[in-house]
Amino acid sequence: MTVSEPAAARARFRAGERRPTAGWAPGYAQANLIAVPRDLAYDLLLFAQRNPRPCPVLDVSEVGAPTTVLAPGADLRTDLPAYRIWEHGECVAEVGDATAYWRDDLVAVLIGCSFTFERALLDAGVPVRHLEEGRNVPMYRTSVACRPAGRLAGPMVVSMRPVPAPLVPTAVLVSGRFPAVHGAPVHIGDPAALGITDLSRPDFGDAVTVEDSDVPVFWACGVTPQAAVMASKPAFAISHAPGHMLVTDVRDAAYAA
Amino acid sequence: MTVSEPAAARARFRAGERRPTAGWAPGYAQANLIAVPRDLAYDLLLFAQRNPRPCPVLDVSEVGAPTTVLAPGADLRTDLPAYRIWEHGECVAEVGDATAYWRDDLVAVLIGCSFTFERALLDAGVPVRHLEEGRNVPMYRTSVACRPAGRLAGPMVVSMRPVPAPLVPTAVLVSGRFPAVHGAPVHIGDPAALGITDLSRPDFGDAVTVEDSDVPVFWACGVTPQAAVMASKPAFAISHAPGHMLVTDVRDAAYAA
Repeated sequence: MTVSEPAAARARFRAGERRPTAGWAPGYAQANLIAVPRDLAYDLLLFAQRNPRPCPVLDVSEVGAPTTVLAPGADLRTDLPAYRIWEHGECVAEVGDATAYWRDDLVAVLIGCSFTFERALLDAGVPVRHLEEGRNVPMYRTSVACRPAGRLAGPMVVSMRPVPAPLVPTAVLVSGRFPAVHGAPVHIGDPAALGITDLSRPDFGDAVTVEDSDVPVFWACGVTPQAAVMASKPAFAISHAPGHMLVTDVRDAAYAA
Repeated sequence: MTVSEPAAARARFRAGERRPTAGWAPGYAQANLIAVPRDLAYDLLLFAQRNPRPCPVLDVSEVGAPTTVLAPGADLRTDLPAYRIWEHGECVAEVGDATAYWRDDLVAVLIGCSFTFERALLDAGVPVRHLEEGRNVPMYRTSVACRPAGRLAGPMVVSMRPVPAPLVPTAVLVSGRFPAVHGAPVHIGDPAALGITDLSRPDFGDAVTVEDSDVPVFWACGVTPQAAVMASKPAFAISHAPGHMLVTDVRDAAYAA
């Protein structure tokens, strides 16, 4: 069962629960985490500035401080349901508690997540299949290259939601009101246009049912920095596990334009 | 006389013309410049991320490269009408050509400018007094502190446009469509609420006529990083002179939400 309050959600994850956060604390923004040593933090902020659709920055921690203004009292090392530990571009561990891996020189960057506008989609009558099916959202690496920044380069990652064809314009307009959490889709329709060959085999998260009357709709995704880590192989980074987000105390409406 | 094409405007400034750029190349975005050594660039990007209303970043150059994707072919050392050279928080020179001061370790950050939405204000019937009067826009340091970042802290700077009272809502809505160039006003009315004691004595730019039926309307301003330089006293920085902007090749409409 999901919980409705952000602090309660974080307490559950801190206590060890490991599951995707879609549908948790509806009405509150969720965020991607990418933490890198201070030495790489300029390149990461520059990468985000140059790729604002996949990487809208919501907050940046002080060096070494696992805290954020988005969720006062939260500990970024423990309060997400799952983390990935990266060394030279390889995921060397996926853990529920990153405390043992955290370093005093890490800067934690929190990036907007499209889960944030899912309540608005539901309110507008747009079904969200992965919520219906109790799964993680499917995410795919694309053939679209991000604009490089310093030592960071890599492909854009997208999330996909199958939307009934008559509701696609509604999905565009509703999500477009939330530019800080990826905003309007980056692509509608043929997955091959993004270099995606098989929707049933996502690179991250779970496959979901695509009905015959559905159109696949693709949004830029905050897993993109992880794809840049995989491609660029910096010595060290910590990220959330895809779909296992920070549940913040910020209302989703705060990010509505 | 102003000119209508960005490249022609930049050529005039490169050739030595020194005057504020309000009204130049209408329909094209203009940008603030703040260039700092790479060593301070992370703090500057972080300051911008934490203060997005005054510091919306439009582009960041490669280290040492006085170029920008916003105006291919432009030379950031020469193509603005005037520059300020900063040492330890003091403006040590105001020059029309910054080439002699440029350094190989400088990162040039270009920040949105409210001149960009002035054509939209005019199109909506909102008069722009400094354009009517052929002056620079008046700008003021406020009592509103920016959120600090690393070695950078300082007050928010605002630009002010007197708007006839019945047109204030229009001015809000029109500028609000341009969040990347400061967006909606940060304050409407009493200057004292921002710690401004005398509208006729701006900290930057020129005073303009405020009619009895006008309401002073204040927008966050991209001179804010200069105020941070004045307050924080980093060893070196180069900025544009207030109101003497980079005229870019990007259409103003590109920044309309």
